[in-house]
Amino acid sequence: MKTGIITIGSELTSGGIEDANTALIAREFHRRGWQVAATMSVSDDETMIKKALDFILPLTDAVVITGGLGPTADDITTAAVARAFNLSLYADEDVLNHIKTIFAKYGLKWTENNAKQAVFPQGAQILANPVGTAAGFSLMINGKVLAVIPGVPAEVRKMLPEAVLPLLYRSFPQETQYLAVRTLKLFGISEAAVDQSMAGIDLPGVDVGFYPRFPENHLVLSARDTLADTAWFMVNKAAAEVLKSLGPYVFADDEEILEGVVAGLLKEQGRTVSVAESCTGGLITDRLTDIPGSSMYLERGLVTYSNRSKTDLLGVPETVLQKHGAVSEETARLMAEGVRKLAGTDLGLATTGIAGPDGGSEAKPMGTVFIAIADGAATICRKFSYDWERRRIKIVASQAALIMLKRYLTGEATHEGK
Amino acid sequence: MKTGIITIGSELTSGGIEDANTALIAREFHRRGWQVAATMSVSDDETMIKKALDFILPLTDAVVITGGLGPTADDITTAAVARAFNLSLYADEDVLNHIKTIFAKYGLKWTENNAKQAVFPQGAQILANPVGTAAGFSLMINGKVLAVIPGVPAEVRKMLPEAVLPLLYRSFPQETQYLAVRTLKLFGISEAAVDQSMAGIDLPGVDVGFYPRFPENHLVLSARDTLADTAWFMVNKAAAEVLKSLGPYVFADDEEILEGVVAGLLKEQGRTVSVAESCTGGLITDRLTDIPGSSMYLERGLVTYSNRSKTDLLGVPETVLQKHGAVSEETARLMAEGVRKLAGTDLGLATTGIAGPDGGSEAKPMGTVFIAIADGAATICRKFSYDWERRRIKIVASQAALIMLKRYLTGEATHEGK
Repeated sequence: MKTGIITIGSELTSGGIEDANTALIAREFHRRGWQVAATMSVSDDETMIKKALDFILPLTDAVVITGGLGPTADDITTAAVARAFNLSLYADEDVLNHIKTIFAKYGLKWTENNAKQAVFPQGAQILANPVGTAAGFSLMINGKVLAVIPGVPAEVRKMLPEAVLPLLYRSFPQETQYLAVRTLKLFGISEAAVDQSMAGIDLPGVDVGFYPRFPENHLVLSARDTLADTAWFMVNKAAAEVLKSLGPYVFADDEEILEGVVAGLLKEQGRTVSVAESCTGGLITDRLTDIPGSSMYLERGLVTYSNRSKTDLLGVPETVLQKHGAVSEETARLMAEGVRKLAGTDLGLATTGIAGPDGGSEAKPMGTVFIAIADGAATICRKFSYDWERRRIKIVASQAALIMLKRYLTGEATHEGK
Repeated sequence: MKTGIITIGSELTSGGIEDANTALIAREFHRRGWQVAATMSVSDDETMIKKALDFILPLTDAVVITGGLGPTADDITTAAVARAFNLSLYADEDVLNHIKTIFAKYGLKWTENNAKQAVFPQGAQILANPVGTAAGFSLMINGKVLAVIPGVPAEVRKMLPEAVLPLLYRSFPQETQYLAVRTLKLFGISEAAVDQSMAGIDLPGVDVGFYPRFPENHLVLSARDTLADTAWFMVNKAAAEVLKSLGPYVFADDEEILEGVVAGLLKEQGRTVSVAESCTGGLITDRLTDIPGSSMYLERGLVTYSNRSKTDLLGVPETVLQKHGAVSEETARLMAEGVRKLAGTDLGLATTGIAGPDGGSEAKPMGTVFIAIADGAATICRKFSYDWERRRIKIVASQAALIMLKRYLTGEATHEGK
């Protein structure tokens, strides 16, 4: 089944608000295997509403329209839709009484313009609105289904599952398919490189989506079938194929996030960690503390920004800072070892680098970052070179540090997570 | 001038991501008095791209297309646009070399599919991309201007003002009015309250936009005139009016960000600060270190997550932690005083609270946060209560802490920045 979405409102075409309804509706349709041919936004303008309908109806079997059902003068969707199909309007007594009841219940003053919300095109089937005064309606236009609902996001979130989806199930029973989706989250590999290694892989019946989410790349595999088991079998088979070549770059699945994966491993292994950050400026600790219960595994985080704080708090000798510099493998190792000892944790994680824009040199350009992990027995340290601006260097360096920690905990070979 | 926007990408029609580009572009056009007739999203599908162009071009003078310019197989926008207007494709040597330079510079492995990003329709004028490998291009189609740029939001934010708007100014000089825009950034006041105090204010010829940006609210004032001075006069007059009633809630203007304002005040006053964070988990230090040259004013940041670290690093007596709790005014004050003394800075900033979801109690529910500033002579402390989930509590608490620091530095009376 092909679908279309038209969101109506001058606040959309003026950029006054971002349109959250389109993505929500499109996602729910896509999951059910209902292709969204096109989505459109037009202002509260009868001509444009008609043009949008004339464009989208021939391309689709079902169209959802949101917005323009309010009581005010600029809300003209119902009238515009009726005229577009030469339908007269009628007032629905039950809806009118329902609206008046709501007004009475909330002690709102009744004004006649509210009666407008009880007017519908001839032949319309009313879609009840459990959270607002504006009821929606549906029309059958030469075998195509048109569903019109309010644009208030809270009302869309309610009426989509309770009114629109059931309407479409009833209208197109043969179109109900099960959708299986798996998201593989990658770090340390470019979009082009992913594309290349995917090119060699044959994934019959599986749809592959690629979503860059700096500093990550998300690979979304989806398959549809009338049987859930079949859909999941196809997707899991495809994921196994992909993991053969891209496995080392995949750090999380579906809803998992990197800090959650690391937190899970630390809790599971009963290990504690402390962090000493320089160039990442607290971002690693901030990410680790985004996970509920982080006090179970994070003892403390130190942002040792000055040389003095590196010496006072972590015991990095001034001689080392002078000889090798604050941004050096030697300093990174001593920071990780120092914070671990000081905090009495199982592990110490440290970063030092040049986030820029200043402070770079020929030998150590902006974007040079050293990341170290100490466990008492040994200390590993890796050097990274990033060519981003300051904030992105902080983000990608915090990501690389958490990836290193994850690989340490899982016993994977660490490798540069550029 | 009438304009249209087409965003291309299966991630849009599948609801994989929300379309931020459309609202951004529509907003910039609207402010310039360029009506947006319609916006559309279609998947990476040649037929649909052509249909979208056939629909929108007759209604508009200029159309912006975003997305589908990447190196991967599903990126087909350039080829689809060329075929829609029967234009052949050519490879641009300069762009190709530019892309290869970027790859060499970043040490990325060159793969042939990247050459695709140097291919353009005959007659296209290239729109340089300062932040990515995918250049955009523009075409003149029977007097109508078509601008095609990448869909990566960061690249759109850069190429819209630097390439697309100048192109439209050149193409439609008579449409070029001077636009004066001022953004007032507010914190600590609700949308409804802003709306109320705005209702009483008359701002002739000035367009007012309201954009919630958690935890901030942005009020955008814009005015257009053929004379820049007149446009600025109108906007500045309006801003002065607004500041009369909302001044205390405005912490930044236009491109300024809170951490930048605080950094500027610290540098200007030659003051240094150190931070002790509990519930904010490093976020305050992370934000302070986002500003270049932050080592000038930030000596260190301590995320004293455990009680032990509060005692060891900040000298908060165990008796205080036992009697009043880690989340208490007493602890917050001692944390601020402790970190200041330890770091030898002019100021000490501290937060302690319950980010949840666990750890709340009848007396101290989730969302309770204490923020303290110590300057050696005195220590101020404020209690805040937030009704958000964990991440939002961290964000709004870090905001309230930086607002408190800003007000301390400017000598404004501090007040609850809820």
